Formats: sequence, structure tokens, C-alpha cells
Amino acid sequence: MNNNNTKKPLILISNDDGITAKGLRVLVETMCSLGEVLVVAPNTPQSGMGHAITIHSPLKIHRSSIFNDLGVEAYESSGTPADCIKLAKYYVLKNRVPDLVASGINHGSNTSISVLYSGTMSAAIEGAIEGMPAIGFSLCDYEKDADFSHIIPYVSAIAQQVLKTGLPKGTALNVNFPRRQQEPIKGIKICRQARARWKEEFDERTDPYGRKYLWLAGSFENSDKGEDTDEWAIANNYVSVVPCLFDLTDHHAIATLNYEWEILRETAPRIIKEHYDNF
Amino acid sequence: MNNNNTKKPLILISNDDGITAKGLRVLVETMCSLGEVLVVAPNTPQSGMGHAITIHSPLKIHRSSIFNDLGVEAYESSGTPADCIKLAKYYVLKNRVPDLVASGINHGSNTSISVLYSGTMSAAIEGAIEGMPAIGFSLCDYEKDADFSHIIPYVSAIAQQVLKTGLPKGTALNVNFPRRQQEPIKGIKICRQARARWKEEFDERTDPYGRKYLWLAGSFENSDKGEDTDEWAIANNYVSVVPCLFDLTDHHAIATLNYEWEILRETAPRIIKEHYDNF
Repeated sequence: MNNNNTKKPLILISNDDGITAKGLRVLVETMCSLGEVLVVAPNTPQSGMGHAITIHSPLKIHRSSIFNDLGVEAYESSGTPADCIKLAKYYVLKNRVPDLVASGINHGSNTSISVLYSGTMSAAIEGAIEGMPAIGFSLCDYEKDADFSHIIPYVSAIAQQVLKTGLPKGTALNVNFPRRQQEPIKGIKICRQARARWKEEFDERTDPYGRKYLWLAGSFENSDKGEDTDEWAIANNYVSVVPCLFDLTDHHAIATLNYEWEILRETAPRIIKEHYDNF
Repeated sequence: MNNNNTKKPLILISNDDGITAKGLRVLVETMCSLGEVLVVAPNTPQSGMGHAITIHSPLKIHRSSIFNDLGVEAYESSGTPADCIKLAKYYVLKNRVPDLVASGINHGSNTSISVLYSGTMSAAIEGAIEGMPAIGFSLCDYEKDADFSHIIPYVSAIAQQVLKTGLPKGTALNVNFPRRQQEPIKGIKICRQARARWKEEFDERTDPYGRKYLWLAGSFENSDKGEDTDEWAIANNYVSVVPCLFDLTDHHAIATLNYEWEILRETAPRIIKEHYDNF
């Protein structure tokens, strides 16, 4: 952590809306007052990229002048948000490790199940995998020119808190902000991911050459009535903070499967063993 | 579940190596003896796609004759593995819900942290999100013509077990098989995800026009000495079965953050509140 006050903390910033997104600039401006900032961001929008990485094609990365006005070193890459964090750590920085990874601020919600589809959160989770405290910030407003002014103090306060106290190992924060309401935000809630999902519809169209194509167009359905969820916090004008793991193991299910599965017991492996008599 | 023995279970199959991959054909052939099979698979390799979905471009889907020899209905799609499961449920099937989602058999390991980058597992996890019992199968052999013969009885036995007993709600299985050894596989272990990671290197090259490009090329580092991990199972010639959640919440960290964060206490929100005096 940044206990060494003689040196400013290094804050690595990425996003999934691309290097020209307004939310990225707001985040860079806000983090500039907390430390030294390095930006490695995708050169095109990467929403919905989940935890994709680029292994079937090569990557490009170029120095960008986009944040020269803030005195911030920036790179744009052809890669995904997760690629950008890998590029920053292993290619741009090499021997220096950021004190914080901040991703976003995403134009649009990443609450509930959307955390899995989110490029913003994949950058944060990649940071956590690499052992760095990491936060993904998202504003529940999809507009390109969304108003971020009401959340800046919270972004700053949360980043300062994480720089000060760190995060549990292997945990990244999924921070979502309500869009600007008539009333100020009520405060911060530490939440769990709501058990909600997208009910999909495919919008079928025909191109000028008579070929069919589909747009994925779902509606969000929240059946989780808990008041400790990210969905509840956002609906009630709170900032939602969900600590997220990259260990997907359902640890409780290990005992269940060991208990229930006949194929783990003596007679069943014998059945399988039959297949091996001619191995 | 499929307690109704008068009707064959419906098994939805996808993968991330694409509809022509050998591992997909092996899985389709194996599942044909257990139920009615429907294939919706990507028309190009999608390894490393994580939980990506297609929202910035339209999707295409076409009937494929590739499994006509097995009497199996198949579709190829321009989408990601997660898209394929959504397409199957909401576009191809509409009102019928599969009894099992089976993804793979992947050419290559999806143990440990690779579960996050894996398109194979994103199809399985998408199945779990949609409330279906789901399994991702991977063979730890990247070869295009990999030998799958030694794992077929295990693929069948695990699928039968899941069709019979179901899975805990919200859990998908990440099943990895060792590549063919001199000795038969020793059995099945229910495991946790090993705490290991990819240490990346970028292989820098120059194209014929003098422009630099990079290939992501890491090496896998396992520092997790546990003998209850997927890595341990594979290294010791066992089948590894990891139950995986799509709820990423670090539930234990909720108390930690509520306890540690000064910005949640009375004085701190007052600091933030200052910013709102002119709201």
C-alpha cells in the first residue's frame, strides 16, 4: 500500500468505453489529485467484452496525447480492457507496480449479473488477479454526455479509502453510482450482487441484401427482494460497493457433490473402470 | 430435472473452439446416447472470449448440416459462446428449456484462473444464469487432433450424474481432464479453483510495413500448494470438477469493509456532504 508518503501513489486507469469516453476523462481528472496517473485504455468501445483477452490476433499499443493537457501519460491499445491491464503491467511499466487500478467511469450500470459481461469490471478484476487493489466505477446512465458531477467526491473518497486501507487479497470493488437525481446521493452501501438477470429478446431484421440478422435486446428482471443488494442501493439513491472475487469456486457445493454423487463411490468407478479394461 | 422417463432429456451443446472442432463432435456423439441434442456453436474459434456478449454489432445464425450424420439439429452463429446459449434459449428453442447445457470439449486446459478467460466456461455459466444445470468440459491438450478417447466414459458418467441429481442452484461445473497418459485416469476429484495466474510476456514483432505489434504470450505460474485444487488433480491424473458460481460477491469482505472503512462512519460522510452543499 501507499504508506510511503514521500512518493505519490501510482494509479493505473483503464475503461471499456474507449480512450475518448467522457467517463474516462472524469476519472483521470479526479485521480490526478490523488497520485501519479497512467492510462492504458482501448482505442474502441469494448462494452460487453466480459473477461475477454486477445490470443488469436496480435495487439497494438500507441502513445496517446489525449491527456497531455493534464500532464498524464496515456496509451491506446487495440486490446480488451483485461489486455490493457496486462499491457500496462508487463509492457509499459515492467518493474513498477501500481498502487491502485481504477477502471471506468463506465457509461451505464454494471450491477448484478452485468458484472460478468462488463469490460469495466474485467479490467478491475484483472488488476486484482495481478495483486493490485482495484476498483471498477460505473454510473447508471448510458448517455455519452452523462452528468458525472454529483459522483466525483465519492469516486475520490472511495479511491482514497482503498489507497489507505487496501483491499482483502483477491478482491476487486464493483462500484455503481445512481444517475443524478433531484436529491443528493444518500451515502455508500457495501452490498452483495443481486440475483437478477437479463431476459433476452432478439430483434430480427433483414439487411438490404435480404439476409437476416439479429440484435440482442433484453430487459433486466430483478426478482431479488433483498435490501442488501447493489440493485436496492441504486434504486434508493445510494452508492453501491460490491467486493468481487475472481475465485469462482462454489466452496459450499464441494461437500454437496462429494455427498451426492454416486459416481464418486466405489461401485460407480468400477463401471467407469470397465471402459478401461482395454486401455 | 429429468424425472420423466417417458421423454428423453434435451441437451444443449456449445463450445468456444467453433462448430468444426473435434472436441465438439466428440461431445455431441457422447451426448447423443443420453438424450436429444441441439447444437448452437460459434462459426469461428472464440478462445479467450471470457464472458463477452455481442452488443455493438448484430448477430447471425444459420442452420448447419454438420451433424446431420448423427441426426442432430445444429446452428452456427457469429456470436460468442455466451451469445450462443442466449440464442439457443430465446431464439431457437423459445418455449422448451434444456435439461442440461454441455460446453466443449475444449482443446486445452481451463483450470485455475483460466476459468475467467474461458469461452467454454462462459457458455456453461450462461446456462447456469438461465437456471439450467450446466457443465463445461476441457481436455488439457491444445492439439487440434487431440485424443479424447480416454475421457469419453467420464464425460458420459458426469453428464448422467448431473441429469440425475441436478446441481445446486446457480452452480456450473468446470470439468477438466488430463491429457492421455500411459496409465488410465485415477478417478474424479471435486476441487476448488487453484490460486495461480499467468505471468505475461509480450512478444514484440515488426510487420512488413515497419509497424510494431505484440503477441500475448505468458507462462502459467502455480504457487498454490493445496492438494484440493484443480491443478493438483490434473497433475496427478485425476478428472477435476470445480463447482463455479456466477455470484462474484466476496461475502466475507462485506463485514471487513463495513468495519474498516472510515468513509462509512459519521464524520466521513460529512466530508463528502460538504461537496453537496451547493448541489
